[in-house]
Amino acid sequence: MDAQILQFHAALSQVATRVEDALSGLLPSPETKLGAAMRHAVLGGGKRLRAFVAVESAAIFRVPPGQALRTAAAVECVHAYSLVHDDLPCMDDDDVRRGRPTVHKAWDEATAVLAGDALQTLAFEIICAPQSGIDPRLQARLAWRLAQAAGALGMAGGQALDIAAESAAPLDLDHTTDLQALKTGALFGWAAESGAILGRSDPEPLRRYAAALGLAFQIRDDILDVEGDADEAGKRLRKDGERGKATFVSLLGLDGARRKAHELIVQAAEAVSPYGSAAGNLRLAAQFVYTREG
Amino acid sequence: MDAQILQFHAALSQVATRVEDALSGLLPSPETKLGAAMRHAVLGGGKRLRAFVAVESAAIFRVPPGQALRTAAAVECVHAYSLVHDDLPCMDDDDVRRGRPTVHKAWDEATAVLAGDALQTLAFEIICAPQSGIDPRLQARLAWRLAQAAGALGMAGGQALDIAAESAAPLDLDHTTDLQALKTGALFGWAAESGAILGRSDPEPLRRYAAALGLAFQIRDDILDVEGDADEAGKRLRKDGERGKATFVSLLGLDGARRKAHELIVQAAEAVSPYGSAAGNLRLAAQFVYTREG
Repeated sequence: MDAQILQFHAALSQVATRVEDALSGLLPSPETKLGAAMRHAVLGGGKRLRAFVAVESAAIFRVPPGQALRTAAAVECVHAYSLVHDDLPCMDDDDVRRGRPTVHKAWDEATAVLAGDALQTLAFEIICAPQSGIDPRLQARLAWRLAQAAGALGMAGGQALDIAAESAAPLDLDHTTDLQALKTGALFGWAAESGAILGRSDPEPLRRYAAALGLAFQIRDDILDVEGDADEAGKRLRKDGERGKATFVSLLGLDGARRKAHELIVQAAEAVSPYGSAAGNLRLAAQFVYTREG
Repeated sequence: MDAQILQFHAALSQVATRVEDALSGLLPSPETKLGAAMRHAVLGGGKRLRAFVAVESAAIFRVPPGQALRTAAAVECVHAYSLVHDDLPCMDDDDVRRGRPTVHKAWDEATAVLAGDALQTLAFEIICAPQSGIDPRLQARLAWRLAQAAGALGMAGGQALDIAAESAAPLDLDHTTDLQALKTGALFGWAAESGAILGRSDPEPLRRYAAALGLAFQIRDDILDVEGDADEAGKRLRKDGERGKATFVSLLGLDGARRKAHELIVQAAEAVSPYGSAAGNLRLAAQFVYTREG
């Protein structure tokens, strides 16, 4: 690994630690079953890439770090809620996540439904809390945009399309791209634009960055689903192939998918070129998405 | 019925129609399965008592009606999301709600999970949308308080305690009261205080009103669960008794439960006495809660 990549991994790991600490203080106590399940879902490690994008986009505009940690914690709560619900038997029916039992396996389905529900709520509480230090006008804007990113015309809508696609003919490339832009891209989009909102700046370049990043992330997921090692990924692999679902690999082939992902990380890097060296870590994050093994 | 009660029913029904219209415009299109399921869950009628409390508390402070309709619509979205998830097979396993099939019966469990998820998100979107006409500082406060009311230390926490209580010895009166204050009271509390927040006034009297109202509402639910008619209620009854759960009727007896509910509606009326005749409909709402048949 060259020095830049080493530096990126150090930065990613530092943000992960800081966000984990922040989340630990924001989550309810583990003394109740619901609190314990929520903590299990959120504090289980993970790359914290969405949090990293939120923190690094805020750093471009010299946003106070405590405010950026709020948006980073909120995006991880929404991401964790979506994983808890996606893992349910009525959805993807997964028993393992990040190398540990999923919430409905460690507890039960009812607890998993409620833990996911309460994690989504917590995301809005984290953003809108008076003690966040965020200007209330920006809190309202962040919450509104997060709701758009997470809701029926965003992440939840993408997940619904994904489930519908399982019982239909495989989607074509355009529909798969649209679906993933909702399911994965919308939340990356919010993480990226949150820094610009906090910095009272135009979020458009960061939205373009995140659209390319999110799609490259999903393509890499599809490649890892075929090539990857379940132990390293910490979750079940090869389930898309088993279900006959369209993936970027089934649509473009392995080489085609790699080429497409490479184009996208070039686009992502170009989108943040107006920020110069302040966006260095966001450019490295795009490279990481393209090369990651888990 | 006397003239006051007739006037109250006219007001309740008028608010229900206005909120239903507002919700219809705020919900996603029925063209997708997710949008159709969300509309089925929210637009299925219901008394709209939480919406009524939000609208009437706002009217005390002469809040513009369009703003009050936003909080009313938001509280109905959160209420509907909680019903959709509570009805799931892993929770209460109910097939009928408001006289119609529950979302997981009309569609499937995955759609019910996602429709509930997206309805919660929509509540925050409705409150924080720039086009709501609400001062962004008040949007942030409303969203923060809603998150507290709906989350792990509010409604979702109450539901988790309720599920845990099913596999334990029946709760005593204090624990049952605490549980219901979270499960039912917290959201009524937000509906009541939302008017004071929009009116930049002290929310404390309205919070006290809602705490008494919510508890009286739950006691009446327990009485109807024993005495009521399933057709009129539009849902399955007598399930608490079958499960050996503590209810206000099992703890206090029918007469004791009626007396307790009456004390509470007197308390609710006293709490809003500082507002004089402007709180007339809120006092009638408390009476209605005590006498309703469904």
